Amino acid sequence: MSDRFAPLRTLCAELGVDAVALVPGPNFARTFGADFGTNERPLVAVIPAEGPPAAVVPQLELGSWALLDFPGEVFDWRDQSGYADAFAALARAVPVSSLAVEGQVMRVFVHHALKAAYGDLRIVDGETAISGLRLCKTEDEIAAMERAIAITETALAETLDVVRAGMTEKEVESRLIAAMFAAGAEDLAFSPIVVAADNSARAHGHARADYALRAGDPLLIDFGARWGGLCADITRTFFVGHATDEAADVYEVVRAANARGHEVTRAGITAHDVDDAVMSVLEASPYADRIGSKTGHGLGRDVHEAPYIMRGNSQVLQPGMVFTNEPSLKKEGLFGIRIEDDLLVTEEGCRSLTTFPRELRVVG
Amino acid sequence: MSDRFAPLRTLCAELGVDAVALVPGPNFARTFGADFGTNERPLVAVIPAEGPPAAVVPQLELGSWALLDFPGEVFDWRDQSGYADAFAALARAVPVSSLAVEGQVMRVFVHHALKAAYGDLRIVDGETAISGLRLCKTEDEIAAMERAIAITETALAETLDVVRAGMTEKEVESRLIAAMFAAGAEDLAFSPIVVAADNSARAHGHARADYALRAGDPLLIDFGARWGGLCADITRTFFVGHATDEAADVYEVVRAANARGHEVTRAGITAHDVDDAVMSVLEASPYADRIGSKTGHGLGRDVHEAPYIMRGNSQVLQPGMVFTNEPSLKKEGLFGIRIEDDLLVTEEGCRSLTTFPRELRVVG
Repeated sequence: MSDRFAPLRTLCAELGVDAVALVPGPNFARTFGADFGTNERPLVAVIPAEGPPAAVVPQLELGSWALLDFPGEVFDWRDQSGYADAFAALARAVPVSSLAVEGQVMRVFVHHALKAAYGDLRIVDGETAISGLRLCKTEDEIAAMERAIAITETALAETLDVVRAGMTEKEVESRLIAAMFAAGAEDLAFSPIVVAADNSARAHGHARADYALRAGDPLLIDFGARWGGLCADITRTFFVGHATDEAADVYEVVRAANARGHEVTRAGITAHDVDDAVMSVLEASPYADRIGSKTGHGLGRDVHEAPYIMRGNSQVLQPGMVFTNEPSLKKEGLFGIRIEDDLLVTEEGCRSLTTFPRELRVVG
Repeated sequence: MSDRFAPLRTLCAELGVDAVALVPGPNFARTFGADFGTNERPLVAVIPAEGPPAAVVPQLELGSWALLDFPGEVFDWRDQSGYADAFAALARAVPVSSLAVEGQVMRVFVHHALKAAYGDLRIVDGETAISGLRLCKTEDEIAAMERAIAITETALAETLDVVRAGMTEKEVESRLIAAMFAAGAEDLAFSPIVVAADNSARAHGHARADYALRAGDPLLIDFGARWGGLCADITRTFFVGHATDEAADVYEVVRAANARGHEVTRAGITAHDVDDAVMSVLEASPYADRIGSKTGHGLGRDVHEAPYIMRGNSQVLQPGMVFTNEPSLKKEGLFGIRIEDDLLVTEEGCRSLTTFPRELRVVG
């Protein structure tokens, strides 16, 4: 019988800890094939290097928990009595002295509950190693991501058909979201970024209800659907009515940088290599002082995850990794331009899961 | 000039700490009128009892940060160099020895970064007190919640028009979500719960793609839109084709318990009093052994927040508080029935912000 916890158990030695704790989120979902919401009720599973795991589960969730076929003790608790006793029982059942946790997922109150129950427990941030188990996507995950991307690109095409000068950023955003769900999205991968004119220079700007699109505006749309637990993340920048000469020129530089990212990506080179190649295109242009950010980030069950595509990151790319290729240039107060694709690393090179056209497009 | 940090500064004395830290989330949004996504990039604002605040902000977010008109020093950092230096600068700028944090919002990696920068900083979980500042909703917040609820109830009515035996839970969920965004939702308040038959007995079950609705099934729908940062949260349970006698009888008990919650709620009584009144109705019925959960939870910028409506909670209700009134009964493996409203506490009683009919309804 295969042990779905084997990769986590192996990590314990690597991290020098006795056990790994998982809370609901991307690693939990990959391990158990199901997830739970994160709310005021702590839920945590502790998987030791050896021996049976155990978990603290809100009584309310026992019905859903039963579907996981969890091979260890479960200590449930009710809102009325609180969770301290359940954590104490967990500490007795799995008496470890050190524990790796997901630092970017676990919240402080769970950390405190573990500390209180275990006494002098040493808690290590094992985020990189634990999430590292998700670096290479399975075939099922890639298929789910392709479906999320198909939904996303369908919604983008439908939205562009109705964009006109005079619409507000917020109106465009609403159409986009409605189109995404109509196309089959299960959730938003993240809050969409629909920003025009000066607002497009903000990396994660919010759509404005009081700014109506004008001729000549860039319109940057960065969004994605979630399907089957996997995320899409695409950015395209369009122009309303027409593009100014300067913006069109900047656009072509960004497009060339994006193309360079597709070109160089293959298994065996590093995240540093990709960013260096992409940034070199931007740096060789007249707009070297307007670079927005690094090339990109890994994409999967989390919308931002390893590998982070930046200089200095010596992570070697492997087949099955997926990351965003999203060079950008911006002129503060005037415009921002970004073209983002989701690249799947293959033995020979890469395949862009996103295929929406990248040529400069005028809308409205 | 009014100090938007005054309530937080006052909390410091109450909590016995030198400062409060806020990370993106509901308290941040209420304090600053804007929010940031939570991702791998830490962002934290530290507000001391006295003197200017300071913040650590990802360089990428400086454009959005500028809109906050933050009256203190900002230490930004870039992905390529990491955030340790920015946290160290924060520790020099606001040299405190104790700090209250939002335990249910702050993640462990930010906790670790603060500890590393400050040395022997004492970190206290100030969640209850900090989020307690949001207990009474402002007029703007109530208006936003009413809009979120109107969107939610519109989507529910439209979805019920198309529900038929033979549709899967997943298909109903997709229609519901699409209708919500078409009606103007800005986001989901939480992942909708669309569950029938045995699945309806799970408190937070997931819609199944492989279960088609059958005549006689209960169909429990628990969902809500987010608008203007505020959440709706409503549950209704319907019956496909017809209700069995037993389920119809259970339904009426749940409806009576829900009605009792509306009846007793007013400023001046406690959360305990409300739950006690509601639970008493369930306990006096033949189904006392099938009670699902406590009466409810506060609702606002967070979908689960104080006041928690349960026995033992001596929190006195005040005008402006909003909470869910959601009694439920379930029979494991067969059915779950829940009727949930969002109640606004007033001086004289309460007003249900949700008004969707509660009478037993057969659909499809």
